[in-house]
Amino acid sequence: MQKKLSILVSNDDGILSDGLAVLVKELQTIAEVTIVAPDSQQSAVGHAITVHRPLRVREVKKDETFFGYAVDGTPADCVKLATRHLMKQKPDLVISGINHGSNTAISVIYSGTVSAATEGTILGIPSFAVSLTSFESNVDFSYAAKFSKKLALMIADKGLPKGTLLNVNVPPVPENEIQGVVITKQGKSIWNDEFEARRDPGNRQYFWLKGDLVELDVDEDIDQRAILNNKISITPLQFDLTNYPAIDELRKWEIEK
Amino acid sequence: MQKKLSILVSNDDGILSDGLAVLVKELQTIAEVTIVAPDSQQSAVGHAITVHRPLRVREVKKDETFFGYAVDGTPADCVKLATRHLMKQKPDLVISGINHGSNTAISVIYSGTVSAATEGTILGIPSFAVSLTSFESNVDFSYAAKFSKKLALMIADKGLPKGTLLNVNVPPVPENEIQGVVITKQGKSIWNDEFEARRDPGNRQYFWLKGDLVELDVDEDIDQRAILNNKISITPLQFDLTNYPAIDELRKWEIEK
Repeated sequence: MQKKLSILVSNDDGILSDGLAVLVKELQTIAEVTIVAPDSQQSAVGHAITVHRPLRVREVKKDETFFGYAVDGTPADCVKLATRHLMKQKPDLVISGINHGSNTAISVIYSGTVSAATEGTILGIPSFAVSLTSFESNVDFSYAAKFSKKLALMIADKGLPKGTLLNVNVPPVPENEIQGVVITKQGKSIWNDEFEARRDPGNRQYFWLKGDLVELDVDEDIDQRAILNNKISITPLQFDLTNYPAIDELRKWEIEK
Repeated sequence: MQKKLSILVSNDDGILSDGLAVLVKELQTIAEVTIVAPDSQQSAVGHAITVHRPLRVREVKKDETFFGYAVDGTPADCVKLATRHLMKQKPDLVISGINHGSNTAISVIYSGTVSAATEGTILGIPSFAVSLTSFESNVDFSYAAKFSKKLALMIADKGLPKGTLLNVNVPPVPENEIQGVVITKQGKSIWNDEFEARRDPGNRQYFWLKGDLVELDVDEDIDQRAILNNKISITPLQFDLTNYPAIDELRKWEIEK
């Protein structure tokens, strides 16, 4: 008899989010699922970890099938704590999501969802992040969950290239409107940030960050473009940030001490 | 008459840190320096930005020459707020530091210091992060500041390759013991994390993250190795996380929806 797959699920929307619940339910048909997720919304935390204060863990049981650990930290904290302490053995896979909203282009840098999968990869576990690219409040995560299960089985079978995680974005359309799957590059669009200055009742100023993702490239093979074409986007990412071509250029500078 | 350089300085150790003060003082001999930094220690925040609450800004005047803005947010927030709101014009350079402690190998991923320079680069401004690789409490930042000034002038003259920031680590030895400057790759060492479980006075459990950086590679041209050899390490980094070689491999999987 084959050993049952062990999958760690985390996210950045928090342990009570619908996207996580739907994903877990689907994965439970093929695997032993361990849930370790932030106790609150952690969007845009990037790859933060908690080093200046300790972490607390609370057990969460929503119903007969949903049991998990809520951590008062970041997605990366959750994956560290799960694999280094809460789980007896390292899981076969780490899946982060399903995020409510897209994680494409420069947003990948700010994404807590992606960071949980990055942390899994750093720890040597095949990992992917999955997002449903809609910010509407009533969205249907079921197809994204079904596709995640399929991808999990493929990865359990084939593994992933060393030091590589996958960033999966699923368009928010019915299954029959999905136009396929493309392997993409991270797009180059950035946020057109603005700060809206307001005054509190005590007349003290405060600033809200707002802005839109500005489309800066129209390559066919980028993440955002795939989504616009109703295709599932899968981008292989890495955590080696070295810009190798720039090394030679900088060596020519002959910088002295 | 040539226009004076405009440099934005930020960090993750907080606006009152010594490393920032020493850097600013040195840079003021060549540039108009604007200081926008977190109001408190922000180590290991990664590339977090603040989206669920507004930011507050406080003016800080330490003496006749030190005037800055303290932000109750992350290093990336500081750079966004500085360039999008507080400064009349985009600076010519963003410099983040001088960090008290190294930012090498996998720590680059968790580094708030690096994230400020990353944000500058995203916004199209030549940027670098600089760290003094010692965690001792009494360290001398003066040579690291002097080298930062020299590097700032070179970058103001030559620019940086597109989408590239520099991650500079300076060994904590006197100037005459520095063995030169090397252009390096990000090392592959990772943290051997452990969680120390404790009980609070109410007998509730909490967990402290601890661990060491485990040396996993001994290439001569990595950041950590340069430091061990008393050389200044300069690693070019990028924020395009796409693992390009993995794209072809994954396309062979022919994943269907």
